Amino acid sequence: ETATVAVVPGDGIGHEVVPAALEVLDAVADIEFVHAEAGDAVAEQRGTPLPEGTLEAVSEADATLFGATGETSADVILPLRDAVDSFVNVRPARTYPGVDAVQPETDLVILRENTEGVYAGVENRLTEDVSTLTRLVTQSASRRLAEFACDYVESNGHDGFTVAHKNNVMRVTDGLFVDTVREEAAARGVDVDEAYMDAMATHLAMDPAGYDVIVCPNLAGDVLSDLAAGLVGGLGLLPSANIGSERGIFEPVHGCAPDIAGEGIANPSATILSAAMLLEFLGADGAARDVRAAVEATLADGPRTPDLGGTATTDAVAEAVVDRLPEH
Amino acid sequence: ETATVAVVPGDGIGHEVVPAALEVLDAVADIEFVHAEAGDAVAEQRGTPLPEGTLEAVSEADATLFGATGETSADVILPLRDAVDSFVNVRPARTYPGVDAVQPETDLVILRENTEGVYAGVENRLTEDVSTLTRLVTQSASRRLAEFACDYVESNGHDGFTVAHKNNVMRVTDGLFVDTVREEAAARGVDVDEAYMDAMATHLAMDPAGYDVIVCPNLAGDVLSDLAAGLVGGLGLLPSANIGSERGIFEPVHGCAPDIAGEGIANPSATILSAAMLLEFLGADGAARDVRAAVEATLADGPRTPDLGGTATTDAVAEAVVDRLPEH
Ligand SMILES: CC(C)[C@H](C(=O)O)[C@@H](O)C(=O)O
Ligand SMILES: CC(C)[C@H](C(=O)O)[C@@H](O)C(=O)O
Repeated sequence: ETATVAVVPGDGIGHEVVPAALEVLDAVADIEFVHAEAGDAVAEQRGTPLPEGTLEAVSEADATLFGATGETSADVILPLRDAVDSFVNVRPARTYPGVDAVQPETDLVILRENTEGVYAGVENRLTEDVSTLTRLVTQSASRRLAEFACDYVESNGHDGFTVAHKNNVMRVTDGLFVDTVREEAAARGVDVDEAYMDAMATHLAMDPAGYDVIVCPNLAGDVLSDLAAGLVGGLGLLPSANIGSERGIFEPVHGCAPDIAGEGIANPSATILSAAMLLEFLGADGAARDVRAAVEATLADGPRTPDLGGTATTDAVAEAVVDRLPEH
Repeated sequence: ETATVAVVPGDGIGHEVVPAALEVLDAVADIEFVHAEAGDAVAEQRGTPLPEGTLEAVSEADATLFGATGETSADVILPLRDAVDSFVNVRPARTYPGVDAVQPETDLVILRENTEGVYAGVENRLTEDVSTLTRLVTQSASRRLAEFACDYVESNGHDGFTVAHKNNVMRVTDGLFVDTVREEAAARGVDVDEAYMDAMATHLAMDPAGYDVIVCPNLAGDVLSDLAAGLVGGLGLLPSANIGSERGIFEPVHGCAPDIAGEGIANPSATILSAAMLLEFLGADGAARDVRAAVEATLADGPRTPDLGGTATTDAVAEAVVDRLPEH
């Protein structure tokens, strides 16, 4: 039966990179697309950045391809992650031959808890002077993430993973997180290393090649994955997947780039690679592999957008990727 | 009147780098030293990593020179920061000619809130499944940090500072933090840029030269300063200052390095640079400048410890620094 994919371009270059990725998806899979709106522009027109219809479309689709939004990002992506019960955010960060990077040997993935931590925080302004946020960590969410991490490590041929945390300061909450992750990994026979998230930032900056898979709480994952993005040369090539038990949202790590929006020169690679993660999620592993290979081949010898030193348009890159796909 | 400085070497190489820094201090200033113990070793001998006498010595001294501790670090340094009411942690990160760095253009300082955020967190295990931590942000602590930041920017000839935060997720608490900092800076006529802490990690990794002074909440400062440390080539050369209204604690950013402890080859530069920050805090600006210049001169053409590719001992480096000081 044909899969249904919600398509939410968002703002700015979202309207350029998402259509480019759709061309690629069209070439390899039979998908029914449902188009929906979210972000700054729709907030201005309709008073809300996340219209009811969009929330419904994403909640009902098998998967969602999301572009990028602007100022309203938190009001859009956080409720959408909730709507698909996305318990893990998968963020691979790797370099490609010929693409400049601060640390060219980087090839790792961050598995970020995606439902709680400070993101589930209930906040209060208690007095004029005092405000609080209640950070939430549950054993169940930690276990679910750990199970995913163990599956991920096994199916990708890694030895184990590193858990990053701050349990010397957040003793009870990150204590529960780390203990649960360690317990689950032990039960599964998966190796676990540990690092404080601050020390991890030093290590990543100096020697990212030392890491394959990093498992961490929500905010730690937010920061460490953006650090990894910096090491591989910016956000331009990084895809991500918000995985729930039945649905997922797939989005480039970059933003809506108002400075170049409308010029048709945005790099579509991150969104096309997000589409490959979407294909994998839908069980189309072969198509996912083909798309990834075509993106790599294009990065190696195809046209490049200005962010990578070229002069090609978004469409030219998308076409080059499609040209490099095997018959489907 | 002679200043009193508490000296807490801690564990491991703390017992090597702190005596080295004392030699340098002895050469430039008239200080009365009070020696005290803390850390893993004392915990084993006396059942507590922070004996009452140490807490008292630090609470009463004009300033403290602290080395490094091991497993018990959080139980030592966090109460000590509290004891001197240290509201800001000053963490400069710069490179030196001839010392390898991932990003050789780095020269910035992080001003980290040092009393609250998740560090002031009251934690609870509410049920088998659920744990919480209450993150605290006050207007008064945010203002005090902002006042310090404005003074710092003015006296160091910078145009302004960048405040790093996550107020799109922690709307009330980081909202209060950022609003207070912005307000104070506006009142003082100091420019303020802003960045989300995750975006800041990307920017720092790619272009640290774009930043001079970064002001941020406690945990953000912990992670971003360790990231900056990675960019300048590791923790080996980084000093830090925990500043209170009347007292301060000065410590290298590195740990107690059990792997090389006892060999007499630890790099004392970070501790000597911390001693320079201590001198400045005590009002001995000239001596502080002289010590910094002597460390730089030693790094440029003097003996080097193995972490910098040399074969010199800790003592040889300390002597080289003392040799490069003007008469005092
Ligand atoms: C927009 C923001 C709320 C979001 C986050 O913090 O998760 C973004 O930074 C990301 O990492 O996807
Ligand atoms: C030891 C630990 C509690 C401490 C901190 O988190 O502040 C350390 O990482 C530091 O940055 O000085």
